[in-house]
Amino acid sequence: MKRAVVLLSGGLDSATTLAIARCDNYEVFALSFEYNQRHVVEIAAARKVARHLKVRQHRTAKIDPGVFGGSALTAPIDVPKGRDLGQTGNEIPITYVPARNTIFLSYALAWAEVLGAHDIFIGANAVDYSGYPDCRPEFIEQFERLANLATKAGVSGERFHIHAPLIRMTKAEIIRRGSELGVDYSLTHSCYDPGPGGEACGECDSCRLRSKGFEEAGMEDPIRHRQSFIDRS
Amino acid sequence: MKRAVVLLSGGLDSATTLAIARCDNYEVFALSFEYNQRHVVEIAAARKVARHLKVRQHRTAKIDPGVFGGSALTAPIDVPKGRDLGQTGNEIPITYVPARNTIFLSYALAWAEVLGAHDIFIGANAVDYSGYPDCRPEFIEQFERLANLATKAGVSGERFHIHAPLIRMTKAEIIRRGSELGVDYSLTHSCYDPGPGGEACGECDSCRLRSKGFEEAGMEDPIRHRQSFIDRS
Repeated sequence: MKRAVVLLSGGLDSATTLAIARCDNYEVFALSFEYNQRHVVEIAAARKVARHLKVRQHRTAKIDPGVFGGSALTAPIDVPKGRDLGQTGNEIPITYVPARNTIFLSYALAWAEVLGAHDIFIGANAVDYSGYPDCRPEFIEQFERLANLATKAGVSGERFHIHAPLIRMTKAEIIRRGSELGVDYSLTHSCYDPGPGGEACGECDSCRLRSKGFEEAGMEDPIRHRQSFIDRS
Repeated sequence: MKRAVVLLSGGLDSATTLAIARCDNYEVFALSFEYNQRHVVEIAAARKVARHLKVRQHRTAKIDPGVFGGSALTAPIDVPKGRDLGQTGNEIPITYVPARNTIFLSYALAWAEVLGAHDIFIGANAVDYSGYPDCRPEFIEQFERLANLATKAGVSGERFHIHAPLIRMTKAEIIRRGSELGVDYSLTHSCYDPGPGGEACGECDSCRLRSKGFEEAGMEDPIRHRQSFIDRS
């Protein structure tokens, strides 16, 4: 059984990506990160998803949050709510965390090399997304090239592959695919700015993309939103 | 004054690189890493070098050492001593740390983006070096391409530059250049396997490359080696 490192945030996309890696017959080593993100509840979600989808090992690496200063996800800046989703892809919002996917993939690459794995999965998506530069296909392809120059394995002629199976899927397609694969979305967490009990706000970009996805898939989202959102919609 | 992030290990190469960045009129933000490396004494050296070369800010980021498992620099494996330096470049030694420069540059990229800097300096060298894949010019060039896809700044048309000013210099040339720029090499640390007082072993790859460099430069190394090495040579 081939090994793969899967980046697992605990969100809907990464849970689906993990299920795809399992369906493709990989033995999965899931990697999560703690970087004082506002939505630290996502780490608990990642743990549940990892157990639910039977990974071989789940590791959470701590990253000095100072490195990421300046994003609404890590610093005391308000997470924007209720903006027009039509903007996505055209501007980079304040929730962008500098070089985050570059750092996450670098860690995955190090761990893959230690494990003798040549496959890394990331749930990046460039359709229903927030317009982050490091979610685009050209970024993923460039990182794959880097991986093959950066490592002992790459130099020995073994090829690293960075799999981003969701990259061109809509949120609705992702949810349908995950449901076919048996993903329990009640375990996942998407909100950038959860309430004290971990409940989703329903109004940030991430909540809105999620809601839109379930709606378009003709399915009901099994997680609860704050009452305010339910009232408004 | 333009800002630059400079990767600073506390060794001879990174100290010289920092001096070059200062000479090129950059305001320097130095970045070091703690990852349970055997040679943790290098962090103290980095601090001294940063002060000596008057950086604007010096930050040390902690990296979960588990990520790097399997290298003689971080795991309980013997650091090889006294091997034939003629081998360098042809094989990758056990002191190789998986994806280390990829992770280091990713952190530098994140910090640069936060600081509004577009220049990153790294002391990678592909002449008198240990044959690590992530020290080669093609790796550095590839990372620069990645940086320009990965970031908000890159997308906005601003260009990141990864400077590796030592990449094609011999150790002797590096030492001569650093000396011209006033680098005090007594503050630097190179040894992979220092003694209890932090003294260099004189026999690991890094010590041997350093000795050879000072010898070829016709200069004396201001740091002391273990008696055993002095006896043998």
